[in-house]
Amino acid sequence: MTTVEELLRFVREDLGRGDVTSEVLIPEGAVVRAIVIAKESGVLAGIEECRELLRYLGIEIKNSMRDGEELREGSVVLELVGNARKILGIERTLLNLLGHMSGIATLTRSLVEEAKAVNPKVRIAATRKTLPGLRFFEKKAVSIGGGDPHRFDLSDMVLIKDNHLKIIDDVAKAVREARRKAGFAKKVEIEVTNAKDAVEAARAGADIVMLDNMTPDQVGEALRALSRAGLRERLLVEVSGRISKENLAEYARLDVDVISLGMLTHSARSLDFGLEIVEVLP
Amino acid sequence: MTTVEELLRFVREDLGRGDVTSEVLIPEGAVVRAIVIAKESGVLAGIEECRELLRYLGIEIKNSMRDGEELREGSVVLELVGNARKILGIERTLLNLLGHMSGIATLTRSLVEEAKAVNPKVRIAATRKTLPGLRFFEKKAVSIGGGDPHRFDLSDMVLIKDNHLKIIDDVAKAVREARRKAGFAKKVEIEVTNAKDAVEAARAGADIVMLDNMTPDQVGEALRALSRAGLRERLLVEVSGRISKENLAEYARLDVDVISLGMLTHSARSLDFGLEIVEVLP
Amino acid sequence: MTTVEELLRFVREDLGRGDVTSEVLIPEGAVVRAIVIAKESGVLAGIEECRELLRYLGIEIKNSMRDGEELREGSVVLELVGNARKILGIERTLLNLLGHMSGIATLTRSLVEEAKAVNPKVRIAATRKTLPGLRFFEKKAVSIGGGDPHRFDLSDMVLIKDNHLKIIDDVAKAVREARRKAGFAKKVEIEVTNAKDAVEAARAGADIVMLDNMTPDQVGEALRALSRAGLRERLLVEVSGRISKENLAEYARLDVDVISLGMLTHSARSLDFGLEIVEVLP
Amino acid sequence: MTTVEELLRFVREDLGRGDVTSEVLIPEGAVVRAIVIAKESGVLAGIEECRELLRYLGIEIKNSMRDGEELREGSVVLELVGNARKILGIERTLLNLLGHMSGIATLTRSLVEEAKAVNPKVRIAATRKTLPGLRFFEKKAVSIGGGDPHRFDLSDMVLIKDNHLKIIDDVAKAVREARRKAGFAKKVEIEVTNAKDAVEAARAGADIVMLDNMTPDQVGEALRALSRAGLRERLLVEVSGRISKENLAEYARLDVDVISLGMLTHSARSLDFGLEIVEVLP
Amino acid sequence: MTTVEELLRFVREDLGRGDVTSEVLIPEGAVVRAIVIAKESGVLAGIEECRELLRYLGIEIKNSMRDGEELREGSVVLELVGNARKILGIERTLLNLLGHMSGIATLTRSLVEEAKAVNPKVRIAATRKTLPGLRFFEKKAVSIGGGDPHRFDLSDMVLIKDNHLKIIDDVAKAVREARRKAGFAKKVEIEVTNAKDAVEAARAGADIVMLDNMTPDQVGEALRALSRAGLRERLLVEVSGRISKENLAEYARLDVDVISLGMLTHSARSLDFGLEIVEVLP
Amino acid sequence: MTTVEELLRFVREDLGRGDVTSEVLIPEGAVVRAIVIAKESGVLAGIEECRELLRYLGIEIKNSMRDGEELREGSVVLELVGNARKILGIERTLLNLLGHMSGIATLTRSLVEEAKAVNPKVRIAATRKTLPGLRFFEKKAVSIGGGDPHRFDLSDMVLIKDNHLKIIDDVAKAVREARRKAGFAKKVEIEVTNAKDAVEAARAGADIVMLDNMTPDQVGEALRALSRAGLRERLLVEVSGRISKENLAEYARLDVDVISLGMLTHSARSLDFGLEIVEVLP
Repeated sequence: MTTVEELLRFVREDLGRGDVTSEVLIPEGAVVRAIVIAKESGVLAGIEECRELLRYLGIEIKNSMRDGEELREGSVVLELVGNARKILGIERTLLNLLGHMSGIATLTRSLVEEAKAVNPKVRIAATRKTLPGLRFFEKKAVSIGGGDPHRFDLSDMVLIKDNHLKIIDDVAKAVREARRKAGFAKKVEIEVTNAKDAVEAARAGADIVMLDNMTPDQVGEALRALSRAGLRERLLVEVSGRISKENLAEYARLDVDVISLGMLTHSARSLDFGLEIVEVLP
Repeated sequence: MTTVEELLRFVREDLGRGDVTSEVLIPEGAVVRAIVIAKESGVLAGIEECRELLRYLGIEIKNSMRDGEELREGSVVLELVGNARKILGIERTLLNLLGHMSGIATLTRSLVEEAKAVNPKVRIAATRKTLPGLRFFEKKAVSIGGGDPHRFDLSDMVLIKDNHLKIIDDVAKAVREARRKAGFAKKVEIEVTNAKDAVEAARAGADIVMLDNMTPDQVGEALRALSRAGLRERLLVEVSGRISKENLAEYARLDVDVISLGMLTHSARSLDFGLEIVEVLP
Repeated sequence: MTTVEELLRFVREDLGRGDVTSEVLIPEGAVVRAIVIAKESGVLAGIEECRELLRYLGIEIKNSMRDGEELREGSVVLELVGNARKILGIERTLLNLLGHMSGIATLTRSLVEEAKAVNPKVRIAATRKTLPGLRFFEKKAVSIGGGDPHRFDLSDMVLIKDNHLKIIDDVAKAVREARRKAGFAKKVEIEVTNAKDAVEAARAGADIVMLDNMTPDQVGEALRALSRAGLRERLLVEVSGRISKENLAEYARLDVDVISLGMLTHSARSLDFGLEIVEVLP
Repeated sequence: MTTVEELLRFVREDLGRGDVTSEVLIPEGAVVRAIVIAKESGVLAGIEECRELLRYLGIEIKNSMRDGEELREGSVVLELVGNARKILGIERTLLNLLGHMSGIATLTRSLVEEAKAVNPKVRIAATRKTLPGLRFFEKKAVSIGGGDPHRFDLSDMVLIKDNHLKIIDDVAKAVREARRKAGFAKKVEIEVTNAKDAVEAARAGADIVMLDNMTPDQVGEALRALSRAGLRERLLVEVSGRISKENLAEYARLDVDVISLGMLTHSARSLDFGLEIVEVLP
Repeated sequence: MTTVEELLRFVREDLGRGDVTSEVLIPEGAVVRAIVIAKESGVLAGIEECRELLRYLGIEIKNSMRDGEELREGSVVLELVGNARKILGIERTLLNLLGHMSGIATLTRSLVEEAKAVNPKVRIAATRKTLPGLRFFEKKAVSIGGGDPHRFDLSDMVLIKDNHLKIIDDVAKAVREARRKAGFAKKVEIEVTNAKDAVEAARAGADIVMLDNMTPDQVGEALRALSRAGLRERLLVEVSGRISKENLAEYARLDVDVISLGMLTHSARSLDFGLEIVEVLP
Repeated sequence: MTTVEELLRFVREDLGRGDVTSEVLIPEGAVVRAIVIAKESGVLAGIEECRELLRYLGIEIKNSMRDGEELREGSVVLELVGNARKILGIERTLLNLLGHMSGIATLTRSLVEEAKAVNPKVRIAATRKTLPGLRFFEKKAVSIGGGDPHRFDLSDMVLIKDNHLKIIDDVAKAVREARRKAGFAKKVEIEVTNAKDAVEAARAGADIVMLDNMTPDQVGEALRALSRAGLRERLLVEVSGRISKENLAEYARLDVDVISLGMLTHSARSLDFGLEIVEVLP
């Protein structure tokens, strides 16, 4: 309902004080038909934002694919009719957003498929390792790709990490304090690095335990320890750290609930799109 | 002088309504010493922004590397002393910005070095294919890596592209119109796809000709045509499109002035950094 | 870290284009000592915000009480030294914020004490029935008064209400859908109006069940039904609707976890404070 | 003409990063008919703001009551048709604004009626004791209830108060200075606490004299002193301080022009409204 | 207290994405001493704004003249020591603001002196004919020059103009309605074009009557009519329209209270200032 | 595409908390026909902005002149139909913007005509001596009047001025450094004060040389020196400083490319416009 302002901010970043090329070359009233096409295959994301912006600017959308659809090289993602200056003025913003969001959705889906092949219940999740200012768009692209957005920001959930434990050095106490002081509407998660701390955290009432930077063997051991203690069903187990496309399946086939990867958002390659004017309307 | 507001916007994106974990676990007045370390090698970028933000927030900077310095795994990039809640509240924003900017600077420098090895005068340049909202930071990272920022936005320079030529289908006329109507302070560049148009554009007074999506052979032909017409010295020649790490040297060894690549900004992998609390001060 | 902008917005609302009275009557450099005093008893809230604003404006804080402290008529809440025009320019904003937040904290504490007298484990919680623009400050005042802030906004937690059930008319399905589609970091709560739906929701995996607009007897019945089904321990039970100071104890003494009341934030009476200049410094 | 931005700010405060419940449960294109009903009697205020927001969001208003109309329990205040997610996304903001503004209008009208019963010419006025960020809406609600908004902010009028007189300790001089230095477009008011100062202020040219924290007897004495000095007709007399529903009539029946009360805006109880989906359209 | 944000907005307008000249030529840490000098005589205005901005940016002010002081060619208005890039980055903003505000103050003072020479009690006032976005600064410059700011905006005062009277065609009724409906804190002014309407307006209770576009003779007649009716003392008389430096004295010598001129703010010539670096500090 | 926000900011500056006069006198639904007329002759500028604002506010534009058209006294610039309160609420903003922009366009055109009469190829250019916050509008008005906007801000072009040369005291080195370090998309200009430096700058590769504060004779000498050195064709020559309507032709008839004048934007007299309601629609 309110992202149009954010999108306009992006447009202004690219416009500066106006598109000097169009101003000197394109007649003010020229109307064109244009298409946005994918130049490679992948998963489409960002189209809802494009549509919102186009509607706001009064550019007619003749046809449009939908977020989450499969792209092939040459797929016509959008077909537009409108003022030529306006279309050229937002071309790059549209393409940059589509490219980034679709790149993330494409990477996410490929990892989701890989993980679900060995464990249909596991979730692939994003982290807070997003690019500054783009968290909303990146988390949304992860969701479109079938991933889980994880917590949005620092106010969303309690997540006790190693740096917190350097200050209050007691896993169980940290979890109990958080349980008591944080509002009842928030989940409490804690990052641990061994089986013993995982059990302690679970016993203290953590909703989620994150096994951080552990090998698949270590993760397996922690899961067994939780089961032995009768705590496995009471919480979710997330693994994170040093997980890549190469070793993803090794983690996924263990009985973990969530696998989170920063690279989904901070290192996804952009997908290539182009905008072409296909007709100058009379 | 004025980026601190932008940086605070990034911090707020990550803070939401406040860091609920620190609020419940970290004493309000706790003071810590912390370091930011690089977890892989590369080129440092973003440190000026980090320092500006830290100063604004009253966090003391004990030591700091500088933008453009070489990083190795384990390099201590920053050493800080300050309020624990504040440091944890901006940790992720600092790391996300450093990782993205340093990733771009690292990629840029590697391409610059590759290109300069075969042609010391060539410039590696960014494009407008930047991530929405991050253009300032990404262009700056390209500069730190030794690249050229190219035009910042649509108001910076006239750049006549294929879509403009679909509307006014005459290279020479387009250049002359732009020359006449655009302010004298602006350069005029045009994108062409063959030698004939390059010569025509140069003759009409273009300051820069961009040879777009042409093979090294085609670029060579265009350069020779410009020389034969006595126009080569009058302008700059930029090549763009389908250029990658693999074929960069083939273009660079031709007598071109500028090679521009979108991937510098839209597809650079993030560099890995971490923040560690190393001491809780009494 | 970032509320000072919000506070300055409040100051500007009251300043308009400047304090015309001070400008014509108070010498530009006049320095005064002033105190803020409570004119009635209650619980202090809002002092952290006042201090943040005063520091930003360079007004020296000589003494200050702390949020959560008990006030009596005449308590000196703040003692200030600074430029007279500045102090008069923010006087009303300070008092209005203190009055509103302390009014909420005072009301919250009285209800918390009443409820805890009969059930030490019950939480008194706020709702989203806050005054527009003031949610952060009002939820914080509730916390200072010993209450629970509940979810901050619509993105914080899934809370399925009667209006949602008018569209998807199936309690169990709604909970299961929410579980599956919402991120794993979010809790799922549902509002029900009878014991049968409460059990159904609990069985479907709700983290919290809200018993809405039910009499104490009906609440008791729902709690017993949950216990019989062996589900009581698996979730939190919240009661809401038609709860007032008068009947609060009747609900509190039942085995409920949370009692939420809109009036904490939308109808708390303001507490009376005044600012007095006590000395004009030479 | 420009409040829609403020209203959108309120909506965003409640939406956070989006209504997670609707996103997972309500089909994107679902259209519903909904009504807003009053749950208790009072005076309606805030409806113009609601309508402005609804229009901006493209939600159709089928029927609507008007600001200032009498409400009874069950009165249908608004009837809407539109996208279900949008309506649920603004439900709470609408109700919170209506509740607060109508609460103020209701309280104002009851006091206006009480006062006018004994003195048809007296005005009941608000003060600057408003809740931060809500002054525009609260002053408007006072007007809708038949009250006078008084000065909007510190730039609106000169109003010399006790704290000013602590610095320039001379009633007549303060008024004359203000007269001379403030623009001719501004009225000059002064707060006094006894008959002698009232006369002195009137003689010096005050447009309005505020009798502050005085008993009805003291007010009567001041009014007689002004009459004896032949100054009563030249100015307006306002009374303020310690005035409540209980003693309002005692002040109103004196020959005062204005009675101002902070509680109109800082302590009015919210009026209860609800939004109900009454039909899911096909 | 809050104009610094506005001033930073002005700085950003001139900086764009950064001062490319200084970035490539001036060492980052260079420190200089610089002076701002007047290049012509006049009245200084805008210095308070400059000082506020300089303080915010950490540039040291060694010496400074004060608003309202007389300038001669060569007067050193400010002496600064600070970072060279920062000083060059705000140079033009400082000079543009000083030039515009001092131009207005200079013009105002010359007209005030001319008018007071024939009528010491008359006020020279600005209008709402200000340049968009600059009203605060322009009205302040008028005050510094000895003029009266008049109403700041449309919410400041009731001012009934010819366009209003085209809709409610009755001078007396318009004044009475305004008196009754507008808050008691507002003055009521009306624009009339003849003596009869002036008397009617005064009788209906107007606080100020504006004689618009009338010749000195017509103004004189209106003043006599008001006196004959015994109403002259009860209100202020403003003249406006077609008043210039040439005929100002003719109006001023009549017994009017206020003479307002749009040209004070919309057509004042800028005063010339320059900034010179006088020393590069080691 | 995005100036409407800026225009709304201007409207809000004039509205304050609302047009109190219209609120008390004009019926809420009143619809009127109104015209904007020129009260003197000149060149129209600002109409595109007016139209954008009017469209945004839903006020119908019946007829409209276009930017750049000649105005005579009485020219009907706009004819509007719409809500009376809205039209009166933006009247002054429209007129202030039209008056300022048209004043600049009118002055610019008169100087352009004067200069072109003696040298058809010369450009009359603006400077950065614009009024704070109005650069976009003023530069646009200069363009409408036939002038050249020159660089928009400090990021647009390298322009080495006397203050830079006080720090790096070497014309040739400064130009070469700028060439090398600034992006290839930027032009490099330098301000010099004698023929020798002009030649040195040209030789070092400057795109533009600004002859600052030089007499026509000195300018002529510099031009001859450049020609003798064979450098005249390689660059543009701009003259600036102490140029007025009186001596403009003397400079224009020399073979210079650009003449820039600060007074175009900082000292243009406003053109007089008025808005008249011509019919109250039933």
